Amino acid sequence: MTASIDDLISRAISGERLAVAKLISLVEDGGSDLGIVMEKLFVHTGSAYTIGITGAPGAGKSTLTEALVTEMRAEDHKVAVLAVDPSSPFTGGALLGDRVRMQNHATDEKVFIRSMATRGHLGGLSLATPEAIRVLDAAGNDYIIVETVGVGQAEIDIVETADSTVVVLNPGWGDSVQAGKAGLLEIADIFAVNKADREGAKQTVRDTEQMIHYGPARDWTPPVQETVATKPTGVRELWAWIKAHRAHLEKSSELQLRRRARISKEISDIVAESVKAKVAENSAGLLAQLVSKVEQRKIDPYSAAQALLDTLGS
Amino acid sequence: MTASIDDLISRAISGERLAVAKLISLVEDGGSDLGIVMEKLFVHTGSAYTIGITGAPGAGKSTLTEALVTEMRAEDHKVAVLAVDPSSPFTGGALLGDRVRMQNHATDEKVFIRSMATRGHLGGLSLATPEAIRVLDAAGNDYIIVETVGVGQAEIDIVETADSTVVVLNPGWGDSVQAGKAGLLEIADIFAVNKADREGAKQTVRDTEQMIHYGPARDWTPPVQETVATKPTGVRELWAWIKAHRAHLEKSSELQLRRRARISKEISDIVAESVKAKVAENSAGLLAQLVSKVEQRKIDPYSAAQALLDTLGS
Repeated sequence: MTASIDDLISRAISGERLAVAKLISLVEDGGSDLGIVMEKLFVHTGSAYTIGITGAPGAGKSTLTEALVTEMRAEDHKVAVLAVDPSSPFTGGALLGDRVRMQNHATDEKVFIRSMATRGHLGGLSLATPEAIRVLDAAGNDYIIVETVGVGQAEIDIVETADSTVVVLNPGWGDSVQAGKAGLLEIADIFAVNKADREGAKQTVRDTEQMIHYGPARDWTPPVQETVATKPTGVRELWAWIKAHRAHLEKSSELQLRRRARISKEISDIVAESVKAKVAENSAGLLAQLVSKVEQRKIDPYSAAQALLDTLGS
Repeated sequence: MTASIDDLISRAISGERLAVAKLISLVEDGGSDLGIVMEKLFVHTGSAYTIGITGAPGAGKSTLTEALVTEMRAEDHKVAVLAVDPSSPFTGGALLGDRVRMQNHATDEKVFIRSMATRGHLGGLSLATPEAIRVLDAAGNDYIIVETVGVGQAEIDIVETADSTVVVLNPGWGDSVQAGKAGLLEIADIFAVNKADREGAKQTVRDTEQMIHYGPARDWTPPVQETVATKPTGVRELWAWIKAHRAHLEKSSELQLRRRARISKEISDIVAESVKAKVAENSAGLLAQLVSKVEQRKIDPYSAAQALLDTLGS
């Protein structure tokens, strides 16, 4: 198996699309080869820049992504789009259908588009996403766009694996999501008010700018860019903002700090998931006994967990 | 501190509302006393039945919950409502505002209503929710309704801590969420088509029933109940379905199996989070060194995690 993995990896590094796709499937499945793949792949990573795109369903994220890819291609960058759906293991198909709309780039050898849903991977998509990004990084992509379906906590975890995060709003989002915006403010580097040819766009821009104004002070004040992804208008400006944000991060060394924090979180997540896997494999009998005791209310779950931790020697 | 915890717990068990509220805050904060609280509380739990209510924002979950509480109170049950918001640590306020609408029960001593958002708790709400349920269980509630804000993966994790799960749909939900429904089908024990006085209700009922029909065969076929929570109509029938589902689970011993699986998952989650906390506390120096090596691409994250695992003695 290792031989064929070596082969897959060298083919992926040379940019062979099928090999890249297979490696991402391998990441999704989260099988036992994952550690080996990551170990071998890792030295070939580090040159890609990742952009997270999130926002409510129907906000126009896919169309905006497609228009951004056009801008990137005009500058001859090699681009990958990773569409991640944490809402359900069953919606992968729907999202994939969405992808079909990215027809403009379907025949472009330098654009790679891929949907990803949770499959066997321990730790779910928040662990699988950085790994899939590494595959795309090693395959020589200059930019990797990570697009999510919705705006829940799971999506926030996912876009936090990106270097720059674009939050897509629509005119007239209204009060019901003001609260959600507050959560998004924390993660947004750039706001795009998409469908800006609709009524209320100026108001949404003003509301968002006010929200940023009253939010925590930061070195980088998130710009609010109007876009109409379908035309497209405002997308070149959005792309300019992304590059400006990148320049800011690189100049201020915040890029390094962000990436360092992400590595630290990823390592702890892997540790936690490995321990879970170890418990499931090696301590299944003890776990079953403890569950039975908890069921009978002889011990509580925390004491049961402690008993398991003791056998792990820690 | 332990003395005052003993005091808090005995007051909570006797049903004192302030003590219950304080214990839930303690659970939310996820402080170092959590293990002690759970250990002491646990023997007093096991009699409550939990009902999860999930659905898209605006589907009418709060109003439906309020109407269900009325039905439960008519049978003199003691009831608690736990409204959980995983979407953002910042939307707690908004949800709390929603709670204010439950005016009908505000002065009822046998109804306890509480919102909960992620605070310091390691493992987040999917670990904090079963603990808060235990507090409400020990406080002598017959029924505990766990209501979520949205329908993402985080919400699904949360409602899976319930014995019976009600998924709330609306007429005309349409194609855009068909995909989401597929994920919901897996967790729904009962569907409520709320706002059933609107156009398209019958069609939504038919669509949902068809979806159930084509879904995996189960011992319990989820019923689809039309409701108008604001009137209310159909809520007594919904409450009857919940009781029927409970009777089914108890008769088929599936209740025991479900609860057992949840205990097992909870113990592994506690183990994983404890290991993370241990790494952060005792191995911060080693972790920083490993992060630095990963940054320089001298090692990959999986190998770094393994190095940490080795120091844990496992």
